[in-house]
Amino acid sequence: MPFSAPAPSHLAFVPFVSVQNMMALVHTIGIETFLRELGEYLEADFKRWPEFDKTPRVAAHSAEGVIELMPTSDSSLYGFKYVNGHPKNMKEGLQTVTAFGMLADVASGYPVLLSEMTLLTALRTAATSAMAAKYLAPANAKTMAIIGNGAQSEFQAMAFREIVGIQALRLYDLDRAASEKCARNLSGQGFDITICKTSEEAVEGADIITTVTADKQCATILSDNMVGAGIHINAVGGDCPGKTELQRDILLRSTIFAEYPPQTRIEGEIQQLPEDHPVTELWQVINGEAKGRASDSQITLFDSVGFAIEDFSALRYVRDKLEATGLYEKLDMVADPDDPRDLFGMLQRSKGTDTP
Amino acid sequence: MPFSAPAPSHLAFVPFVSVQNMMALVHTIGIETFLRELGEYLEADFKRWPEFDKTPRVAAHSAEGVIELMPTSDSSLYGFKYVNGHPKNMKEGLQTVTAFGMLADVASGYPVLLSEMTLLTALRTAATSAMAAKYLAPANAKTMAIIGNGAQSEFQAMAFREIVGIQALRLYDLDRAASEKCARNLSGQGFDITICKTSEEAVEGADIITTVTADKQCATILSDNMVGAGIHINAVGGDCPGKTELQRDILLRSTIFAEYPPQTRIEGEIQQLPEDHPVTELWQVINGEAKGRASDSQITLFDSVGFAIEDFSALRYVRDKLEATGLYEKLDMVADPDDPRDLFGMLQRSKGTDTP
Repeated sequence: MPFSAPAPSHLAFVPFVSVQNMMALVHTIGIETFLRELGEYLEADFKRWPEFDKTPRVAAHSAEGVIELMPTSDSSLYGFKYVNGHPKNMKEGLQTVTAFGMLADVASGYPVLLSEMTLLTALRTAATSAMAAKYLAPANAKTMAIIGNGAQSEFQAMAFREIVGIQALRLYDLDRAASEKCARNLSGQGFDITICKTSEEAVEGADIITTVTADKQCATILSDNMVGAGIHINAVGGDCPGKTELQRDILLRSTIFAEYPPQTRIEGEIQQLPEDHPVTELWQVINGEAKGRASDSQITLFDSVGFAIEDFSALRYVRDKLEATGLYEKLDMVADPDDPRDLFGMLQRSKGTDTP
Repeated sequence: MPFSAPAPSHLAFVPFVSVQNMMALVHTIGIETFLRELGEYLEADFKRWPEFDKTPRVAAHSAEGVIELMPTSDSSLYGFKYVNGHPKNMKEGLQTVTAFGMLADVASGYPVLLSEMTLLTALRTAATSAMAAKYLAPANAKTMAIIGNGAQSEFQAMAFREIVGIQALRLYDLDRAASEKCARNLSGQGFDITICKTSEEAVEGADIITTVTADKQCATILSDNMVGAGIHINAVGGDCPGKTELQRDILLRSTIFAEYPPQTRIEGEIQQLPEDHPVTELWQVINGEAKGRASDSQITLFDSVGFAIEDFSALRYVRDKLEATGLYEKLDMVADPDDPRDLFGMLQRSKGTDTP
């Protein structure tokens, strides 16, 4: 005998931000404002870094790539991101990196947000790089070389203009078509853009060098003689064991800043250095406990690999924008019987009701 | 100038099984068939246990509860479950345990299934218990005591009837209303049901004792004098540090079987025993490498805490049922630009198109 299923409570529905809604959210807010405000959320969370539960990401490596879970939490919110990295995907017309993430209420364990994070990761990676450069790059930096002009490159350019004031871009990629794609996408945005034939040419006159290539191998994107005094290097592409971009000698001449050293020593450029090589934690620079750039001639290096707290900040930002924009769907993701002990009764009573 | 966004490819859409669709799936298949077939999937995966990447779950503990990620993978599929455990939720009208999970393609890292897992976890936990009992319980077991009559109890009863042949249930809960709820939900299912006033009364004449209480504390649900020779104990409720249900003396008289000892020694009943106390891995019993029940007088104990491979089996089962039933939605969860390096271009081109 069919019963009618009672309507689930509001807690049973989890707000979900699809790719379409994430794009609409970026356009509604404006990408410059989005990157700047996201940078502010990142900065706020880096300032209270010790409040977070931190653990190196949980990685499943295979021959073709890696799948990772990146959890973190403070006393009220828990967040994690699912993310893959498959360099060979590009040849098959797929994204190298796809991602989604969620936030949950620590007090009840109930999910409060599910979101696409392929786009959001691109935005938070760029905003994190630019936030670090605000503290580490030479004063009045106007010119940035971008070596590697794939999916992340335009986001880096936009974030560095909004947060650091970059005006000129010098692009280089092994595949000139990628540089042309990047230049085309950024045309009409007011950048002074030069496509370069070599990485040596790209770094000429640059105040900041961003390396963001995707090959899963120890490559030398930058060699020692290419890096002059006073430069800030934003090393984004080297982010897993066996994948680095910089010649070791550059590291030895640089003051190195990292997000979470236990993870960076495994995944970042500094995997090339001894375990005890000195590294400054970025959060300490941001909250004033450690020095950022100390002189005009210093080479600063942000050895970025991406950390769970950055995803947490990004999800927190998106969540705070949902009510005003309405750019989300509601997913029937959590079973919510009237009597929490009566899960079986809920299942029984649903029998014979229409399927959705 | 608005461009029209190209339609995403089929890989951009992730099949999602909502709570409503999971309930419809159970009814379409029939709960008995669902539990039996799920048991077969579990058995197939336990038989090839060494093929899986195994890691203890990644837990974030707070004062009120725990939030966990449980990942595993074989050479072709990766899966993980998000699950919380908040015993105080029940008083607030919320589920103690909510969960969702996903499967992804190892070769590309792309998600291939997202599913509610609150109901699915209840089903897989019951099917796993019954599968273990098939190998460990006394021959021709007909009577089961269930101590703790909350959300998991009816699922245990249904799975043990379908897979083990249990006909009579002896129910006990500190709160008699829970036993009455359980008996009411199972009425008309052909069980011979007795509600008992004490746990001592409940175990009288039982061939199998299932303990499935929810308090996060070391409680003594079963004391040594209650457990006679030849009994199989299915200990489901003790599943985190500091939460046990059985008196230590019972453990010392039992032959103990566990899913994944590195996790069980932290979370299961055997957290009361020394690190080197002998434990048999269930998968070795199932693939014939180790002995299950050896005599009529032996006390067997399945110290169940739940392991990621069981969720993997359950997700695999659900995924295999989707095509024939159509009981899923498609989520726009993965950004999928035509040129994988052109994520920014995809974002730009979406500007001015209608929001969904």
